[in-house]
Amino acid sequence: MSAEKWSARARAIDSFKVMDLLKRARELDDLGFDVIHMEAGEPDFATAAPVAAAAHAAIEEGRIQYTPAGGIAPLRERIARYYAERYGIDLGPERVLVTPGASGGLLLAFALLAEQGRRFMMADPGYPCNAQFLRLLEARAQRVRVDASTNFQLTAELVREHWDEQTAGVLLASPANPTGAVVPPDEMAAISATVRELGGELIVDELYHGLTYGFDAETVLAVDDQALVLNSFSKYFGMTGWRLGWVVGPADAVAEMEKMAQNLFISPPTLSQRAALAAFEPESIEIFEQRRAEFGRRRDLLVSGLRELGFGIATPPQGAFYVYADASELTDDSFVWCWSLLEEDKIAATPGADFSRFDAERYVRFSYTTGMDRIELALERLARRIRG
Amino acid sequence: MSAEKWSARARAIDSFKVMDLLKRARELDDLGFDVIHMEAGEPDFATAAPVAAAAHAAIEEGRIQYTPAGGIAPLRERIARYYAERYGIDLGPERVLVTPGASGGLLLAFALLAEQGRRFMMADPGYPCNAQFLRLLEARAQRVRVDASTNFQLTAELVREHWDEQTAGVLLASPANPTGAVVPPDEMAAISATVRELGGELIVDELYHGLTYGFDAETVLAVDDQALVLNSFSKYFGMTGWRLGWVVGPADAVAEMEKMAQNLFISPPTLSQRAALAAFEPESIEIFEQRRAEFGRRRDLLVSGLRELGFGIATPPQGAFYVYADASELTDDSFVWCWSLLEEDKIAATPGADFSRFDAERYVRFSYTTGMDRIELALERLARRIRG
Repeated sequence: MSAEKWSARARAIDSFKVMDLLKRARELDDLGFDVIHMEAGEPDFATAAPVAAAAHAAIEEGRIQYTPAGGIAPLRERIARYYAERYGIDLGPERVLVTPGASGGLLLAFALLAEQGRRFMMADPGYPCNAQFLRLLEARAQRVRVDASTNFQLTAELVREHWDEQTAGVLLASPANPTGAVVPPDEMAAISATVRELGGELIVDELYHGLTYGFDAETVLAVDDQALVLNSFSKYFGMTGWRLGWVVGPADAVAEMEKMAQNLFISPPTLSQRAALAAFEPESIEIFEQRRAEFGRRRDLLVSGLRELGFGIATPPQGAFYVYADASELTDDSFVWCWSLLEEDKIAATPGADFSRFDAERYVRFSYTTGMDRIELALERLARRIRG
Repeated sequence: MSAEKWSARARAIDSFKVMDLLKRARELDDLGFDVIHMEAGEPDFATAAPVAAAAHAAIEEGRIQYTPAGGIAPLRERIARYYAERYGIDLGPERVLVTPGASGGLLLAFALLAEQGRRFMMADPGYPCNAQFLRLLEARAQRVRVDASTNFQLTAELVREHWDEQTAGVLLASPANPTGAVVPPDEMAAISATVRELGGELIVDELYHGLTYGFDAETVLAVDDQALVLNSFSKYFGMTGWRLGWVVGPADAVAEMEKMAQNLFISPPTLSQRAALAAFEPESIEIFEQRRAEFGRRRDLLVSGLRELGFGIATPPQGAFYVYADASELTDDSFVWCWSLLEEDKIAATPGADFSRFDAERYVRFSYTTGMDRIELALERLARRIRG
């Protein structure tokens, strides 16, 4: 088999540009260097004890077999109830689809709505895989350049301005990766109304819900009960390696996605589903809220420290666990700068190139998925680097 | 959102036709009827104790986080070594990609090789999802009707006869679902040579390897080191709900698929990977070999019992855990017959319609994923039904 046999699709799908840098960071770890890891897209906390206990119990009980493709009934019901508890929104379990990670949900949502050859609008910078899912399906991403003037988010005005006959819909992410930016409820309502008026569909990535600081984000479902919502057990619930997420949508859309899920996934991981049931228990939520407060403290420390050092941060990130910092006062090529930061100062951070096709060379994403002491040490190393 | 907004792709992807029947079977269970379940596509055994113990230990050790997209290094190495132990074939771990189920492997293999608009040849009857993966990618299945005259498998001759300019390659499954048929090594070599001569690519589904009776199946890698091989921890290793599989291929193809896996899956389930390491231990293999012997006894009982009752079984299934029985002496519509079998005799079996576009009404798939006593009871109920 030679590479010329590979599909155009395969060749077009990018790897994360940061992969070589990540590999080098691990090499430096193994060589005994004290690398500060600020590149990760996952919480640094262990699985919460009640979740681990539920997993142990599920293994003890015996057979770990296939489940219905849309997830076990108690989990669908529990997620539906969470919307009542957290957002005051009534959902039936038939509107919830449990997926293998939010990645599985994103594939199903696009497979449902992104016709071959059509485009989904999304903000640039953004999560790099979104466009790759569309490429897999022979649809395309329509990247709209956003900046600090709209808090790095799409607006109803931008949606209208960029809409064309190839546009099938809009994907929003709120809070967003890499900026942590949240779309305010009134703007979300305006975007939804605009998308509907233009005859399109709306998908909202709410993966970082729960990880907002000083306020709770509102779900799009409060203003648009026809939207598809993506969520995950990876971020707020801290279950990355368990690979479990969910989609909320209109019941008939969920049934249609479940039909595809039968074929594509058979079922989400069974043990993860059983464990996830415990994630909604009060003792688990208490743990997650403590972690959220810790993330908030880290954010404040990192934002103020980076600003003092000359990084541009127009609005402090409202959610997620990233600071997308403008490093243009310090470098005109953040990719080269990040490599040098790793080799010389042993700090691993992600250059903008993975998130953007525009202005990427200005930006660096720092994750605050490491402890306060480590963030302080990183700021000291950065100060030495910048101030000499 | 209205159904007219759904993509042509979504509308074209079928649900399993048996889903309503499965649902009814579960209803009858809940109503207290003694339903004999012969419809399942998964072993009825619990997770092997050493695998369960390894999962407990992994949870105890702490963080269950993302892994490399292609799987943890020890598991890639262990799978590679398994090829040396079991088949006498030397592989480096860079030729092994760990996937979220064999479903994940199938998506990656087709995404790599099935260009939009082109077709992959496969036997009909076959595993119904294969065609749906291709549809997702805007490629297509090229179904070739096979029957007892070629043991329900493609041959080199059939491949050559049906090849056209839209054909990108061939997907073989050996042992196959639903027939349990195995492609003999010389025919596998001939098919491989023919596919290569015609400029195509070969993917071989070896998911049921290990579950052959009276002999060990040979891997295609013995005759074709450029083929992509799909395998799974679900069948021989009995880990269905853990959702873990693997692909073996040329190192550069594996790297290309890993790049896509980063985007599409992030990583396979972490706990499942840690648990799967224990599946290769001698005490696990001993358990799996005992189960294989038990499947063999069940197969013999079911095949002889069905034949006595007038079902046509040209060649007893050589592998997997299914009998694909010709019921044309008993009915001219196996779909209706299966419903009646469930309602009247409380036996759940799968009609041919899920596996075939041709002759489907003649066939019924009986799984022997239930104990000897249950198979005996099923044969008694069938005898009463047929002989009155």
